[in-house]
Amino acid sequence: MLLGTQRVNSRGHLEVGGCDTVDLARRFGTPLYVIDEATVRANCRSYRAAFESRYPRTDVSFAGKAFLTTAMARLVAQEGLGLDVASAGELYTAIKADFPAEKLLFHGNNKSAAELELAFQYNVGRIVVDNFHELAMLAAMARDKKSSRKILLRVAPGVDPHTHRLIRTGQEDTKFGFNIKNGDALSAVRQALEAAPHIQLAGIHCHIGSQLLDASTHVEAIDVMVGFIRSLKDATGWSAQELDIGGGLGIRYLAEQLPPTLDDFATTVIASLKDAFARYDVDEPALLLEPGRSIVGEAGLTLYTIGAIKTVPIPEDPGQRIYVAIDGGMSDNPRPQLYESVYSALVASKATLPADTVATIAGKHCETDILIWNTPIAEPKPGDVLAVQSTGAYNYAMASNYNRFTKPACVFVLDGQADLVSERETLDDVVRLDRVPERLWT
Amino acid sequence: MLLGTQRVNSRGHLEVGGCDTVDLARRFGTPLYVIDEATVRANCRSYRAAFESRYPRTDVSFAGKAFLTTAMARLVAQEGLGLDVASAGELYTAIKADFPAEKLLFHGNNKSAAELELAFQYNVGRIVVDNFHELAMLAAMARDKKSSRKILLRVAPGVDPHTHRLIRTGQEDTKFGFNIKNGDALSAVRQALEAAPHIQLAGIHCHIGSQLLDASTHVEAIDVMVGFIRSLKDATGWSAQELDIGGGLGIRYLAEQLPPTLDDFATTVIASLKDAFARYDVDEPALLLEPGRSIVGEAGLTLYTIGAIKTVPIPEDPGQRIYVAIDGGMSDNPRPQLYESVYSALVASKATLPADTVATIAGKHCETDILIWNTPIAEPKPGDVLAVQSTGAYNYAMASNYNRFTKPACVFVLDGQADLVSERETLDDVVRLDRVPERLWT
Repeated sequence: MLLGTQRVNSRGHLEVGGCDTVDLARRFGTPLYVIDEATVRANCRSYRAAFESRYPRTDVSFAGKAFLTTAMARLVAQEGLGLDVASAGELYTAIKADFPAEKLLFHGNNKSAAELELAFQYNVGRIVVDNFHELAMLAAMARDKKSSRKILLRVAPGVDPHTHRLIRTGQEDTKFGFNIKNGDALSAVRQALEAAPHIQLAGIHCHIGSQLLDASTHVEAIDVMVGFIRSLKDATGWSAQELDIGGGLGIRYLAEQLPPTLDDFATTVIASLKDAFARYDVDEPALLLEPGRSIVGEAGLTLYTIGAIKTVPIPEDPGQRIYVAIDGGMSDNPRPQLYESVYSALVASKATLPADTVATIAGKHCETDILIWNTPIAEPKPGDVLAVQSTGAYNYAMASNYNRFTKPACVFVLDGQADLVSERETLDDVVRLDRVPERLWT
Repeated sequence: MLLGTQRVNSRGHLEVGGCDTVDLARRFGTPLYVIDEATVRANCRSYRAAFESRYPRTDVSFAGKAFLTTAMARLVAQEGLGLDVASAGELYTAIKADFPAEKLLFHGNNKSAAELELAFQYNVGRIVVDNFHELAMLAAMARDKKSSRKILLRVAPGVDPHTHRLIRTGQEDTKFGFNIKNGDALSAVRQALEAAPHIQLAGIHCHIGSQLLDASTHVEAIDVMVGFIRSLKDATGWSAQELDIGGGLGIRYLAEQLPPTLDDFATTVIASLKDAFARYDVDEPALLLEPGRSIVGEAGLTLYTIGAIKTVPIPEDPGQRIYVAIDGGMSDNPRPQLYESVYSALVASKATLPADTVATIAGKHCETDILIWNTPIAEPKPGDVLAVQSTGAYNYAMASNYNRFTKPACVFVLDGQADLVSERETLDDVVRLDRVPERLWT
């Protein structure tokens, strides 16, 4: 499974962005997050083209939660996408990147007063309001500042995607958004309209889940959302000018996973939107989309160095398991533990050799942090570089310092050049914020 | 459920270490990790007393993976315990704390050459060797340096504790240690003996799992380990001078969880050890123990500020759920997502009021990060401080920057005084290691 610009070079090594991955490991050390810049850019452009060609009033924003550094925010700005931020830290990153404020959307189910202040200061384009507490806080702040803020209201469409329970977000029983069924969403619209001109209610937002491998739940949610726009028009006279249908398209972690192409996805989404607009007799709003994983997931890989290898007896066939330990683990990729996520891997220096060893890739934490169970790779040796595919989303973003590991570096690779976008932490970084009360030094 | 020095003070607030938790939240901000220093010290002393009184040749070490800062390493040193480290970062923390080198044990299933170098430089007391690759590396380094290192060999005893699959470690099918059944452990002993005097083989080590609420699996493992010591004596003539039986005693996350007292635990463990020594006719080795969670888990709590509260309809009884959002979540405590861990909580400022609201405590990440499902608390309001109990272990240690959240501060509280042991990250810390290639600024 070669993704994006990946190819096998004349040395038999895996190459990405024109860079030999074995050379990258040597130069920058391991573990190393590698992002294929051309693929990220191609995905940004494909999203825009697929949707704008079918529905010109589409704004695509990148969901920063999947992968955000200052450099990534710059790249997103260059590609003309908007950016979703979900915390003060993500917003601060956008500010450091001089990201166009009007193209920022600020998300979150529990924004603090300080976060909303920062959003006002930077004049963030849209705040996606999640709950009554936030709506009241925001309206009061806007009044005090004699200012005005454009908002979307997040609603829970009550659809249930078939994905891991922790990354389902669109169901009724959720911490996210205003419930439609119990009348909260309608009340929120009324309150927002009453708070004009300090609050400018632009539209409604939903998000149904993550790593969805077909568009069926999107289609279901679109019907709910457009029907809700109709009922709001009837109840209040207000017409939503913007409809944000969230993100959620899945990616290939394994060769056999085949998400729809962006063209197929856009065809289905836009057809169901237009159908719903017609059925519910709704003025066509602008469409907002927030892909994250599908922009950056397949564009990333992680390079590790293989260390200890051991074979242990197991009761099941084939009677033994080969554990191949790498120099990272759950601190740089907690997804296998969190979601039972699956990955594929290859020995970067043996990309032309047969993948005839069934290996279980184990992290090096004091815990059973298995990265991949029983995956075929070329015969591994200590010192070999292992490349794990499709780690661009929710790996760097979720990295921890468990066992006081230093966080890996991250590089963008493009046309044979590799540039650091996040430096590797040092041992001094690990203790940097430690303080010792005097009495403990005796 | 009040733990350690916790009590309800005259203001009706939760107090710990003589500090009012509402004041702590105001002074240090939230989320805030609070460690009850007197309770940590009491646990250290109880462990030593319980075991040393029954088996004088016991060395108790604190498993740093549960919670390690420089201050914690100092405290452990003051209490005369040893310290387990499991990475260069944990070892570096011990070094910064001037931790007595001879009382350090260095763990890990995939130690790097650089980590072993650091262990040599600092003259770490014992290296717990996990595999043949490491043993060969270590022997070669010791020979090159004309030096010698004391080691234990980690073996997999092949017992299966009843705990979460991710924190089981003693079973046969594991990344950890030398397998006894297939002969690897015996071969490792022979190789270690052959590498004398550069390698001084002191004993054997096992670890069976974590959060164990009775001693039955320890008893099972002790039988395997002592039997193995016997068979090693028969096969090689070598007598283990040290037996390390790991850690693993569980704690109270909920009021109904009742782990054995340390006295009961020690009684059971020492009785089964002495019984096994007699049955297998083995010279009594020194006993090593490595508690982590049971030293620091119940001594920690996390303070959050409550924000948005919402009630949503659900199909099950009682027909609705109350989501109470806090200003932290999976970035400061990933355990509910990782292990379906359970916690209890109380509203710190309403400790005398009836806990008559069944609330679901939700984090503020862009994901379904529920910290506690359906837990009874006093009626919550935005701005209230929520205290989550028993967060001393594997919370600070596993914290991430997901959604670019800043990591919380951590304080030790003692006799009415609160001291920072880890400063809160700032927004500038979040972008500190970000780098932007020049071409992205155009």
